Amino acid sequence: MSLDSVLARIDADLPTAIDRLMGLLRIQSISTDPAYKAECDAAADWLVADLRSLGVTAEKRPTPGHPMVVGHIGDSGPHLLFYGHYDVQPVDPLDLWNTPPFEPEVQDTPNGRVIRGRGAADDKGQLMTFVEACRAWKTEHDSLPCRITFFFEGEEESGSPSLVPFMKANAEELTCDIALICDTSMVSPGVPSIASQLRGMCKLEFTITGPDIDLHSGRYGGPGLNPLREISRIIASLHDETGRVAVDGFYEGVQEVPADLLSQWENSGFDEKAYLNSVGYSIGHGEQGYSVIEQQWARPTLEINGLWGGYQGDGSKTVIPSQAHCKITCRLVGDMDPAHARNSIRAHIEAQLATDAKITWGKISGGSPAVVMDISRPEFAAARSALTEEWERDAVFCGMGGSIPIAGFFKEILGMEAMLIGFGNADDAIHSPNEKYDVHSFHKGIRSWARVIDALTKV
Amino acid sequence: MSLDSVLARIDADLPTAIDRLMGLLRIQSISTDPAYKAECDAAADWLVADLRSLGVTAEKRPTPGHPMVVGHIGDSGPHLLFYGHYDVQPVDPLDLWNTPPFEPEVQDTPNGRVIRGRGAADDKGQLMTFVEACRAWKTEHDSLPCRITFFFEGEEESGSPSLVPFMKANAEELTCDIALICDTSMVSPGVPSIASQLRGMCKLEFTITGPDIDLHSGRYGGPGLNPLREISRIIASLHDETGRVAVDGFYEGVQEVPADLLSQWENSGFDEKAYLNSVGYSIGHGEQGYSVIEQQWARPTLEINGLWGGYQGDGSKTVIPSQAHCKITCRLVGDMDPAHARNSIRAHIEAQLATDAKITWGKISGGSPAVVMDISRPEFAAARSALTEEWERDAVFCGMGGSIPIAGFFKEILGMEAMLIGFGNADDAIHSPNEKYDVHSFHKGIRSWARVIDALTKV
Repeated sequence: MSLDSVLARIDADLPTAIDRLMGLLRIQSISTDPAYKAECDAAADWLVADLRSLGVTAEKRPTPGHPMVVGHIGDSGPHLLFYGHYDVQPVDPLDLWNTPPFEPEVQDTPNGRVIRGRGAADDKGQLMTFVEACRAWKTEHDSLPCRITFFFEGEEESGSPSLVPFMKANAEELTCDIALICDTSMVSPGVPSIASQLRGMCKLEFTITGPDIDLHSGRYGGPGLNPLREISRIIASLHDETGRVAVDGFYEGVQEVPADLLSQWENSGFDEKAYLNSVGYSIGHGEQGYSVIEQQWARPTLEINGLWGGYQGDGSKTVIPSQAHCKITCRLVGDMDPAHARNSIRAHIEAQLATDAKITWGKISGGSPAVVMDISRPEFAAARSALTEEWERDAVFCGMGGSIPIAGFFKEILGMEAMLIGFGNADDAIHSPNEKYDVHSFHKGIRSWARVIDALTKV
Repeated sequence: MSLDSVLARIDADLPTAIDRLMGLLRIQSISTDPAYKAECDAAADWLVADLRSLGVTAEKRPTPGHPMVVGHIGDSGPHLLFYGHYDVQPVDPLDLWNTPPFEPEVQDTPNGRVIRGRGAADDKGQLMTFVEACRAWKTEHDSLPCRITFFFEGEEESGSPSLVPFMKANAEELTCDIALICDTSMVSPGVPSIASQLRGMCKLEFTITGPDIDLHSGRYGGPGLNPLREISRIIASLHDETGRVAVDGFYEGVQEVPADLLSQWENSGFDEKAYLNSVGYSIGHGEQGYSVIEQQWARPTLEINGLWGGYQGDGSKTVIPSQAHCKITCRLVGDMDPAHARNSIRAHIEAQLATDAKITWGKISGGSPAVVMDISRPEFAAARSALTEEWERDAVFCGMGGSIPIAGFFKEILGMEAMLIGFGNADDAIHSPNEKYDVHSFHKGIRSWARVIDALTKV
């Protein structure tokens, strides 16, 4: 089957594809707010109908929350699973939107044409790049070149409570050769990117208690142990002066990035200066000896997310508070074990405690290891070549500083490698007012998937 | 005039004196709550009437808040000013009181008879020790042995907003040879105590800003400067490992306690272990090389009163917050200058700031130097002897870890030394439910003032 005619069809049908996306964008599928439950349902219905128009045996599948959409097409060739989510973030603060969030429109901007509206990039526009690629294949050749399972979720923006149970209950149906996910960005504009490693996480929270009750600093200031001073000392001890986490055993399982991958990263067009300056930094503040991109993608962190105790109101209060509180999350890489990282930190902190300082550990638990894709698999090389051809620029395997839990679940629950290919840009304002998706991203995203499907079929 | 007959009169009239105090305690003079304005007025009227019954030319004097009571008696001999306050703390939580707070009663307890009720110790009972001593002198000798100015305030428990303006406007009338204040406790039960030094204070608050906005730790965790980590490091740098404040210039004006005074303190019966254990400490946590009593009375502190930033809710949030906040107060001693102490701390903190960390200083200002009485004045020796005779135990010059602003104002505004003699005990539960004043404190307090008046007359 000819790829060229598929690409030509995509070019010709772009206006229709944009119109279709507008229809999906008008549905107010805010998953976190129960008031929009019917709209989430409507978005699932819309997708079922659209997939069925391609000949996909699509169904809305109930969960305790918002429904999944699952569909299958094709009966020979490699079996690809494609994942996306149809729910969107809330739109507040509404007064910062220049156009109504659910009245999408195509706008001309100094940086090109954009599709403006909530969900344009995250994730409805990206989800539809894959669907439109399949549509073009189907239109041109009356069939797809391989088997495809579509798996769309409606709870991604509200913590995916139904995802794991649903995957476990439908493991056989959902297990394919490889998963494709379109919910990420490009490292820099025009640089096709395959995210091949995501950081994991562990979480801790603790309270330091000094005196039994809040004390008056006139009566106990001096002899009294102050838990705010204690917690500050303890937190300060968690890193050394080079920015390295100073916790024994914390780095177990961390690997250095292979030289060839590092070289890809360094040539990925990642604009370190713009990335730092955009939030008010002039330099990177992570571990010395590592580039900013390594600090973000390939090094573990120990981050203080919350710290509090004592008086927070106006004016002053001469109190030695009884308690001080701290919340920590760590980003994990390589083979770091979340439980081991957490236990190492607990041991470190407990070893710092002064006489009369008591510690209690909070309820926060859970964690997930980093996900590192096996990029030696031929599908990765095939997809990379396909993207390189489309964008006329070497595609890169990049990392991600955050976690995309679904990628880990595919690996853990279904034993399936995931390939994260997305066409978003850093200025898409996802989760923010005036979200947009570049028409260029949408168009070349569709073409990219047409090529990737073709390439994976030939692996 | 004979002191012995006065003391005998005090013993004989104790039941009547207690009854009289009950009358004052029944008045609900809560100064901080506008609903009790008329009650505050009634307490002032009660005192005016009681003083007039002694022949004092007493008057209620208006202020923008609750009235002052000022009265004068006598026309020869040394001129003493006696200060006390007739207002009381609120009574909540009311359900923790075993008897109604404004229905005072004398109760027998395992530790002796007590007068139970709001204000029994703070300060109505203590105030009346002086008035009753004067009454006994007047009853026995038809006159007092010296000139006395009474100065009662009704806003002490609500920040004394009218005090300084009133003192300035009536400076000539209020300036005496020495001020006597009965609003403090004894170092330990049965040990007569003259507070001769009070710590001063300076205040600071600041905010550390890292990134311009709250960041996602997946996107900036690693390269991103976290202001919570910064503020912890900065706070940790404020003390060295011996507990000493590690700020250049902070200790300017601090003097070591003279050996004879220190020896008085160490023999004052101060129960270090009980003081520490009562709030959950097993050891003192102040500067190494100083006793707990020195740490509390004679050493400066730098205390973190509030510290906060980032996420404080349930669960976790992967945020690198934009800002972290801190409130500090210092207790000052000796000749420390509040402005110099504050500036030294500001300079220290600003020198610690990492690249990209911005600091803003909050609005909190003000401060007061420590107050150190000139105990070489003969009045102090005279009062000490008088107290020693009454309690059959060496009276001590003690310090106080907190501040009593009125003592500083007498010195600063009226150029008048103040002598703080009080008969409270640590278990009086002032500001708390079930406040009490020992009948023993009341009785021997009256006798003590009779002796002190006699002694000061003979200086």
